[in-house]
Amino acid sequence: MIKVTVWNENLHEKSNPAMKEIYPDGLHNAIARGVANEEFEIRTATLDQPEHGLTEEVLNSTDVLLWWGHMGHDQVSDEIVNRVHSRVLEGMGLIVLHSGHFSKIFKKLMGTTCDLKWREADDKEIIWVVNPAHPIAEGLGEYIEIEKEEMYGEHFDIPAPDELVFVSWFEGGEVFRSGCTYYRGQGKVFYFRPGHETYPTYHNKDVLKVISNGIRWAAAGKGAAPKYGNAQPLQQISKK
Amino acid sequence: MIKVTVWNENLHEKSNPAMKEIYPDGLHNAIARGVANEEFEIRTATLDQPEHGLTEEVLNSTDVLLWWGHMGHDQVSDEIVNRVHSRVLEGMGLIVLHSGHFSKIFKKLMGTTCDLKWREADDKEIIWVVNPAHPIAEGLGEYIEIEKEEMYGEHFDIPAPDELVFVSWFEGGEVFRSGCTYYRGQGKVFYFRPGHETYPTYHNKDVLKVISNGIRWAAAGKGAAPKYGNAQPLQQISKK
Amino acid sequence: MIKVTVWNENLHEKSNPAMKEIYPDGLHNAIARGVANEEFEIRTATLDQPEHGLTEEVLNSTDVLLWWGHMGHDQVSDEIVNRVHSRVLEGMGLIVLHSGHFSKIFKKLMGTTCDLKWREADDKEIIWVVNPAHPIAEGLGEYIEIEKEEMYGEHFDIPAPDELVFVSWFEGGEVFRSGCTYYRGQGKVFYFRPGHETYPTYHNKDVLKVISNGIRWAAAGKGAAPKYGNAQPLQQISKK
Amino acid sequence: MIKVTVWNENLHEKSNPAMKEIYPDGLHNAIARGVANEEFEIRTATLDQPEHGLTEEVLNSTDVLLWWGHMGHDQVSDEIVNRVHSRVLEGMGLIVLHSGHFSKIFKKLMGTTCDLKWREADDKEIIWVVNPAHPIAEGLGEYIEIEKEEMYGEHFDIPAPDELVFVSWFEGGEVFRSGCTYYRGQGKVFYFRPGHETYPTYHNKDVLKVISNGIRWAAAGKGAAPKYGNAQPLQQISKK
Repeated sequence: MIKVTVWNENLHEKSNPAMKEIYPDGLHNAIARGVANEEFEIRTATLDQPEHGLTEEVLNSTDVLLWWGHMGHDQVSDEIVNRVHSRVLEGMGLIVLHSGHFSKIFKKLMGTTCDLKWREADDKEIIWVVNPAHPIAEGLGEYIEIEKEEMYGEHFDIPAPDELVFVSWFEGGEVFRSGCTYYRGQGKVFYFRPGHETYPTYHNKDVLKVISNGIRWAAAGKGAAPKYGNAQPLQQISKK
Repeated sequence: MIKVTVWNENLHEKSNPAMKEIYPDGLHNAIARGVANEEFEIRTATLDQPEHGLTEEVLNSTDVLLWWGHMGHDQVSDEIVNRVHSRVLEGMGLIVLHSGHFSKIFKKLMGTTCDLKWREADDKEIIWVVNPAHPIAEGLGEYIEIEKEEMYGEHFDIPAPDELVFVSWFEGGEVFRSGCTYYRGQGKVFYFRPGHETYPTYHNKDVLKVISNGIRWAAAGKGAAPKYGNAQPLQQISKK
Repeated sequence: MIKVTVWNENLHEKSNPAMKEIYPDGLHNAIARGVANEEFEIRTATLDQPEHGLTEEVLNSTDVLLWWGHMGHDQVSDEIVNRVHSRVLEGMGLIVLHSGHFSKIFKKLMGTTCDLKWREADDKEIIWVVNPAHPIAEGLGEYIEIEKEEMYGEHFDIPAPDELVFVSWFEGGEVFRSGCTYYRGQGKVFYFRPGHETYPTYHNKDVLKVISNGIRWAAAGKGAAPKYGNAQPLQQISKK
Repeated sequence: MIKVTVWNENLHEKSNPAMKEIYPDGLHNAIARGVANEEFEIRTATLDQPEHGLTEEVLNSTDVLLWWGHMGHDQVSDEIVNRVHSRVLEGMGLIVLHSGHFSKIFKKLMGTTCDLKWREADDKEIIWVVNPAHPIAEGLGEYIEIEKEEMYGEHFDIPAPDELVFVSWFEGGEVFRSGCTYYRGQGKVFYFRPGHETYPTYHNKDVLKVISNGIRWAAAGKGAAPKYGNAQPLQQISKK
C-alpha cells in the first residue's frame, strides 16, 4: 500500500470562478480521485490547514507527496519547506506539478532558479515520450496531446534531469523538458509540467496515468541506509 | 509474474574441479535457486543447447535475461547476439554479470571495448552503495563485503551509466563502477560486477538480493510504444 | 592547431541537381569553408577515395572527424568503420551530422538502432538551447531558426546523451533531441541534427558556429591514459 | 585571459601551527602560486575582508571562483552566498575544494545535505580517473596517489554529477566520488575532494594540474543567453 498525500495551495479555487467549474472541490481532490487505485492510500492537504496540513505525523506516514502551488508559494513557511526537504532526502517521494516549479521546496531541491518561459494563450501541447523504457511512461502511446494549455518554454533553469522522460511541443514554437526525474538523498523527485488551473488537464486519462506511474516510481525501493560522520576504518591502516 | 531466463556458458564448470565444489550443478542453477521467489518464473539456458537455449520462443517469453560468460564469448553465434540485442531494444531486461562485460551482447549494447583491469589474487572487495535511493539498492546496508574476489579496476571502458548504483573498493588499491544501469531502446540493462567462478559469490545473500532487485527494476514498466520512419504531420504545415 | 577532417559520402551531389545549386563542390567543401578558422587545419575525405579517404595516416593525424552520410551507409567498409571506431575510443573527436545518425560508425558507437521519425515537407525547425552553460552553445541566442528543413522526430533511439544541448521544434508537431554529446573511451562524440542535402543549412551562420564550437569541444583535453589487462596490486594484499 | 579568484576562509592558518609550516602565507596563496599561468589572472579573497572580499566588482570580474572553507562556513553571510549563487547561475565557474562540500554555497547549489563519511588517520588516497576523455583529466596518468590525506567516504549526499571524473580509494576501505562536474544555469561547478589543511596536498603537481584543468573547463564557453518570463509566440497560434 503506497501512502500518497496530495498537497494543493487551494487558492485559485477560491478566487477563480472558471476554475470552480473545472475543479469544483479543488484540484487536489480531482487528482486524488483521478489516481485512486487499490494500491494507493490517498490523503489531501492544503495551505490553509495548521502546518499547511504537513505535520510530522502526516509526512512520516507519506510515501509520496504531490505538490501543486502557484500564487501562494511565499505563504508556505520555511519551517514546513525544510521539513519536507528533509523527508525527501530521507526517502519520501515528491511529485511536483506544473507551477510548482517555482515552489520553495522545488527550488531548494534543485539549487537553481527554476525559471522558464510561459504564455497563457491556449497553445496546443504535445508531450512526447523520449525514454520509452522508463516506468513513468508505462502504458502510454508515443505522445499525449492536450488541446489547450499554458505554454512553458526553454530555457528551463533546472539541473539536467537524471532521467528525461518527456519533452513538450507547443503550438507557438517552444519546447520544454516536461517530465524530469531526480534522485536526491534517499528520495526520488519527479517534475511533471501540465496542469494549469484553468484547463481540465487533471481530468485527462493519460495525464493521470503518468501521475500514477510517477507515484509507483517514486515509492519503489526504499534503497539503502547510508551513515554519515566520523568513521572507523574497515581495514587496518598500515601506517597506524 | 516476471519471466526470468538465466543464461550461462557453463564451460568452467566442466573443466574446473574447484568450481564444481562451489557450483555442483553450474553457476546458472545456483543463481536460479538463489533468486527463486514467488514473483519470478525462472528458466536456465546454456551455450551448448540448440541456439544456445535462446530460441525466439524463449526470448519472446523472457522479461529479464541474466548473462554469465567468460571463456566462451566467441562461441556465441552472432545470430543469437543480434536476436538478444533486438529483444533488449524491444523491452526485454538484461542483467550482465561479472566477466559478461566482455560478452558480444554487452559490447554491442555499450559501443565501447568494455575493457578493464583485473587480477586473481583473493582481493577483498567492498561494494559501496553510491545511490541509496535506487531500487536496486533496496534492503542493503551501506556496503556489501566479499572476503575474496577477482579484482576488476578502472578504467572500465563503458559509457557513463545512466545511473551509477555501486562502486567497489579492492584491497590492492583499485576502485570499480560495479553497479551500472542503462536505458537502451525500450529495454533496461544492469551490469553487476561480482561473481568470479572460483568464489562462492553467488551464495552471498546480499549479492543475490541485488540480482533480485535488478530483475524487478529491469522488468518494471513496459514503457511506451514508439513508432519510426516516415510520418505525417500532427499539425497543418502553413507553407503546404 | 586542431586537425579537422570533413568526411562526406558525396553521392547526392552527383545525382541531385537541386543539391548542385546549393553545394556546387559538395557539402563537405561548404562545411570546410564555413568553419574555416586560424585554429583549424581542415581536410576533406569522401567515400569514393581509396579507403574512403580515411587511411591510418589520415585518421592518426585527425583530432576531430566530421561525418555526413545517407544513401551510401552500406558502401562504407566495415574495416574503415572499425578503424574510425578504434580511433574515437583512443581520443579522436567525432561529429556526426544529420542523416549520419544511421551511419555504421554512429550505430556502432551508440549500440542502439538510432532510428527516428522523418518527413520531407519543408517544416520550419526551431533549435532551442537547453544547456546554456555548454561550450557548444557559445555565442548563440536562445534558439536557431531554420525556415525549411527535413523533420526528425522522437522517439530517437539513442542512449540518453551525456549532455543534451539542443532540442528541436518542428512545425508539424514533433520535437527532437538535436544536439547530443557523448564521452566514449578517451574520445568525444557530438551528434548535431540539421543538414538535409536539399536545404542551404550549412550556409547558416549559427549552424556553422555550432559545428565550430563542437570541433573545439571534441578536441579539448586529450584526457588521461588508461591501461587495461592484468595488473599488479598498488597495495600489499594482507592475505598474500 | 581567465580571471580567477581564490577564496579561502583563512582560519586554520591562524590557529594551527602545523598548517603554518605547510602553507606559511595561507592555502589560498599556495593554490594561487601553484596554478599560476600566463592564461590566468589570479586574485585571492578571504573571509575577514569586507564582504569577505567578494564584492560585486570582484565577482563581476571573476570568470572562475575557487572556494576553500571548513570551520568558518557559518561566518559566511547569506547575502554573499546569494550573490555568489546568482553569479554562478549567470555563468561564473565555481570550483569547490575539499571541506567546501559543507559550504553554504555548495549546499545551496546542490540542494542536498552534501554530508559524507570522514576520518583523520593518514589514509593513503588513490584518485582514479574514470572518465579519461574529460578535459579535467588532461595530462594525468591513470591515477593520482597521495601518501596521506583525510578520508572522505560514501555515501556522499550530492546529486549524481553530470560528469564523474574521479573516484578515490582509501586505505581504510572506503571509496568516494572525488571529481564531480555540474552544469547549473549558465555556469559550471567542479567539486574536487583532496586538500585537508594539515597535508601538503596543494603542493602536489597532479592536484594542481587538476585544479588548472578545472579552471579552464569552468571558464570555457560562455554559452547562450536564455530569456525568462512571459513570451510572445514565434508561430501564429491557429486558435487565436
